[in-house]
Formats: sequence, C-alpha cells, structure tokens
Amino acid sequence: MHHERIVLGHGSGGRLSHDLLDRVIFPPLDNRILEGRTDHATLNVGGDHRIAFTTDTFVITPLFFPGGDIGTLAVHGTINDLAVGGAIPLALSLSLVLEEGFELRCLERILLSIGKTAKNCGVFVATGDTKVVERGAADGIFLNTSGIGIFDHHLTLGPRQIEAGDAIIISGTIGEHGASIALCRDMAHPYAPIVSDTAPLHDLTQKILKQCSGIKVMRDPTRGGLAATLHELAKASQLGMLVQESSVPVSEDVASVCELYGLDPWHLACEGRIVLMCDPRSAEKVVEVMRSTREGSEACILGRVTHEYPGIVVAETDHGSQRVVDLPLYEPLPRIC
Amino acid sequence: MHHERIVLGHGSGGRLSHDLLDRVIFPPLDNRILEGRTDHATLNVGGDHRIAFTTDTFVITPLFFPGGDIGTLAVHGTINDLAVGGAIPLALSLSLVLEEGFELRCLERILLSIGKTAKNCGVFVATGDTKVVERGAADGIFLNTSGIGIFDHHLTLGPRQIEAGDAIIISGTIGEHGASIALCRDMAHPYAPIVSDTAPLHDLTQKILKQCSGIKVMRDPTRGGLAATLHELAKASQLGMLVQESSVPVSEDVASVCELYGLDPWHLACEGRIVLMCDPRSAEKVVEVMRSTREGSEACILGRVTHEYPGIVVAETDHGSQRVVDLPLYEPLPRIC
Repeated sequence: MHHERIVLGHGSGGRLSHDLLDRVIFPPLDNRILEGRTDHATLNVGGDHRIAFTTDTFVITPLFFPGGDIGTLAVHGTINDLAVGGAIPLALSLSLVLEEGFELRCLERILLSIGKTAKNCGVFVATGDTKVVERGAADGIFLNTSGIGIFDHHLTLGPRQIEAGDAIIISGTIGEHGASIALCRDMAHPYAPIVSDTAPLHDLTQKILKQCSGIKVMRDPTRGGLAATLHELAKASQLGMLVQESSVPVSEDVASVCELYGLDPWHLACEGRIVLMCDPRSAEKVVEVMRSTREGSEACILGRVTHEYPGIVVAETDHGSQRVVDLPLYEPLPRIC
Repeated sequence: MHHERIVLGHGSGGRLSHDLLDRVIFPPLDNRILEGRTDHATLNVGGDHRIAFTTDTFVITPLFFPGGDIGTLAVHGTINDLAVGGAIPLALSLSLVLEEGFELRCLERILLSIGKTAKNCGVFVATGDTKVVERGAADGIFLNTSGIGIFDHHLTLGPRQIEAGDAIIISGTIGEHGASIALCRDMAHPYAPIVSDTAPLHDLTQKILKQCSGIKVMRDPTRGGLAATLHELAKASQLGMLVQESSVPVSEDVASVCELYGLDPWHLACEGRIVLMCDPRSAEKVVEVMRSTREGSEACILGRVTHEYPGIVVAETDHGSQRVVDLPLYEPLPRIC
C-alpha cells in the first residue's frame, strides 16, 4: 500500500484513504480533534458555548444529475455533517475554483441551487471566495463548503459511546447516490435514471435527539457507503458490527445497477441517509420517529453491536452463515461527491 | 464586460472579479452579510457570543516560493482574514483536492508546513477533507482553509465606520508577495529572488486594538494589492481615498521587478501587510505600535480619507498633481494565492 504518488484510491473513503490520513495527513497536523475522525469538530468558543465546524470540497462529475447538482450536494453534505454530529446548522461558507472557459450559465444554475437549497434548510452563505485557474488546470468547477452549527443540548455523541448490544439502524435504502452517478456516466445503459437520495438530514436528526433517548452516534454513509461507515465505527469503538444481510434495504433499481457494473451496494455512497447506533431499548422508537418523516420512511434495524469480532464488520445471512465485510482497497467510483 | 464564460480576470480581485460577484454570485445567495464584502462574516452563536468565520481556497503556482509555500500561505491567509476583522484566530479546517500522480513527498512537505505554521500561530486544524481527481483534472494540489475566530471586545470595525479626515496607514512595503511569485515563474530573470512577505498578522492586530483607539477598519491587501483594497473601501464607504504617491513604501527590489515585467506595485498582492484607517488623532500611535513589531517595522501614513472624490482612489504627487488610481480590468498575475 506504499505509494510515492497520489492514486485515485486515496480519495475513495476506503483503505487507501485511511492509509493516507494515518501516514501522511494526520501526523504533521498533530492534534487529537482531527484524529477523532468525525466529520465535524466541536469547538469551545468561550463560556460554555460550543459550535460544530465542518468542511467538504466537492469535485463530482457530472455537475448535474437526477435529484440534484454539485450545489445541492454541497449544501446537503455540509449540513448533514453538522446534523449527524447533533448540531443545528447555522451558516455556510462557499469557496469556488473555476476553470477558465467554464460556462457562466452553468455557474448561475449552480449558485441558484445553492441559494435555494440553503434557504430551504434555514442556513445562509455567510462568507466566500472565488479563484480562477487557467484552462486545463481544473475540471470546470470545484466547490468547497464549510459549515458552522450550534448545539441546543449537552449530549455527547461519538464512537466512544457505543456499547455491545446497541442497535444499528439505517434511515432508508442504500446506494441511490452512487448508483445514480454510475448510470449518469454511462451513455449506453439500458435503465431509467436513478434519482440520487441527496437530502438534508438536520430536521430528522433534531427530531430523533428530541424524542429518543440512548442515542450513541449518528453518521451519514457517504464516500465508501455503509461498509466504510460501519468500518470506521467498528475501528473507533473496537467493537464488532453484526449486520443481518437481508435487513439491508437495497432498492431493485440499485441492485440492478450494481449487477450491471459489478458494484457492491454496501460500498455505494448515500447522500441522504443516517446510520445510527443506540441503546437497544430505544431502537423501536428511533425507527418509528424516522418512519414518521419523508426522508426516513424506510428506516429499519440492521443489526447489533457485539463484543465478538472487535473492530470488524460481519454480515450474517438468514441461514446463519457469516462473512467479513471488508473495505474496498481501490476506488469503485471516483468523484461521486 | 459581459462574458459567457469564465476568464482569468474573474479571479483577479479587479473589476472583472467585482462584476462576477455583483452579477452572478451574490444575487442568488441573497443575503446581506455576503454583500458586506468583508473577508470574514461575524456570526452570533447564541447568547451574546460572536464568532468570525472565513474561507479561502489556494491555487498558487509554484507551490513552493521564497519565504513560504501553499501551506504557509493558506494558514497565514486565513488567520489574517480573521485578524483584520478584529478576531483572535481559534481553529482552521483543511480541505485538499489532489491530482492523481501528485508526489507524496510534496504533500508531506506542505502538510508539515501547515502543521508548523498553525502551531506557531496558536491555532490548530480541527477538521478536514481530502478529494482525489484523475490526472489532468486539477493542477497538483488545491487547498481550502476555512477559519473560526473569537472576539474579546465589542468594537465595530468596517467601511461604514470610516469618516472624512481619517488617516490611511500601511504596515510596510507593498508587493513583495506578487513580485516574488512573478520572479519565480521566470526562469531567465536577472535578479536575486524576492522573499514573499507572507506572515501572520493576528499579534499585530490585537496589539493595535488593545493599545490604540479610533480604529475604523483593517484589511490585508492581497489579490489586487493596495489599489484593490483602497477601491473596495472607497466604494463601500462612498468616501475618497487620497494617497501621497511618494509615501507608498515600495522596496527597490519590487520596483525593479515591476519595471522588468511592466507591473504596477499598487496592484501586486501583499500577504503580510495591513491597510488600516483610523481617527487622525490615533494615527501616530498606530504607526508607533506597528513599528514596535517586526512585521510592522516599516509602517507609515499613506494619506487621508476625504469627502472629495466619493468612491474614488486618488494618488497625489509631491508636486501636487493628482491621478485617479483605477482597478486593473484583467489579471496582471494569475494564481498568486
């Protein structure tokens, strides 16, 4: 796994990504907040005021896809990193890298969708930056959104809260975003387009935190999909994640696309789903609250956390046979966000 | 000035940049904080707690230059946007776009300088993101740093505070960063390298705010240089900026480079300078405080704000003749930050 140059897999959310973070990126930055590997940082800003802070750069291609575009994806992605951390999104920054020759009407369309999406989510773009590079030095547009959120509770969420016996819950079907982008890139495919699941999750997370107790951790399974999210939580908690294979909700459309391209739905990105772990006594209530919302209407319990298999994700079939779910080494589908 | 596609000048900090912001970027985002055109936003995060929030993407080429690299520049640039807003920098985010094939030892060197620079400035990288794009879709590395700062005072700074009669002060010589990059890109130039002025300004701004009264606004004259900063402040305050041409400190080295390439030092970026406007009674004290520091050792008064020439920047020669200082329309020197 030792490379001298960056390869696409370093951006996959899979094993090479983790290797790059652990070997190259974290050591010189030397601080424990980053190494917590959450998608947001919690900062004390004086008194007992805490804020959540997150950042994401979007390099997706194509820029426009069924269900959204790079702008909606950026706003949702940043809001969701704050939301699954338990914060209420407050404000975004917007930083653009534009390639010389990029069409202004594309830029206008993307900004319109950023403005509209932000407004619908109750946040605003507070500050920004625009850079232009010469033709060939970027691919049209790259877009960074950082975000600030505030907390109205003093709960502690995170992998350290997870205990054996906790329920593993997902808020809906997996892989719609990844499958949508895979289809978009194939001019000759035989299927109807799949609509990305890109959606803001802050209303749902706030509802869950207000109505349910015993919530341990929430994550949005984006790059690397459900497999990468469960892996990270297994590794960070040093507990095992035991998932009933048949419980994992995969739509027929996504299953067909996976078959067509040889993809694994567990590895496909979601952009509007929550993976949640909670006290087993809260599990039914969490599913009920999720199902009462549009974005969580297909929520279900996937499995449970276990002392067996520390740091490992295991899928169990209905017949009781088990397989270890590994992270992909290379990138199955680059530039999906 | 109406284009259908992005041109390099849209990233210059000059007239085309302003046109892009006013016509394309601001309208769909529709909020007054962005239109304040400061390099940071002030956000209320509950109670009477305010934070400063800023973002910048760095696309500089070459990545390494005399006096720093893309990493030091990013940390300084983001800290300085917070500092000139009157805030104390607290934390940064770091978001990387890496091109497939980028050398890992370059990445390591950049991260090392980010870690070291952040530590020296008393901030830390709290959260991050890494994306990889295929060969040819980016130019090595682009790097976004967003920043959070806190306030320990209730001063209001900004162009609305500026009044006729206020003194215009600069903390040192102009154009070192732009001139350094211009020389770096020319293999055949006849001069010794010029060291970029890239430096953190938060110690200096805090010292000024603590020791001096009557501070109206502070800015760091980066893209577009002194000319662009004075223009923005003239436009935002609808007052005139009258500058004594001979007071503007330009080093001999920078003057030579400007002559060689036909550049105007007023348009060259600084990355470690402050332009400050204050009550004229505070001017001598501000200069004294600046000069007591290494980074402000060549501070001086440039001129004064006037009711005449609303919204315009005017340079006056020692013989009393005057010229209007215009913004460059196109990009004199792309990708300098």
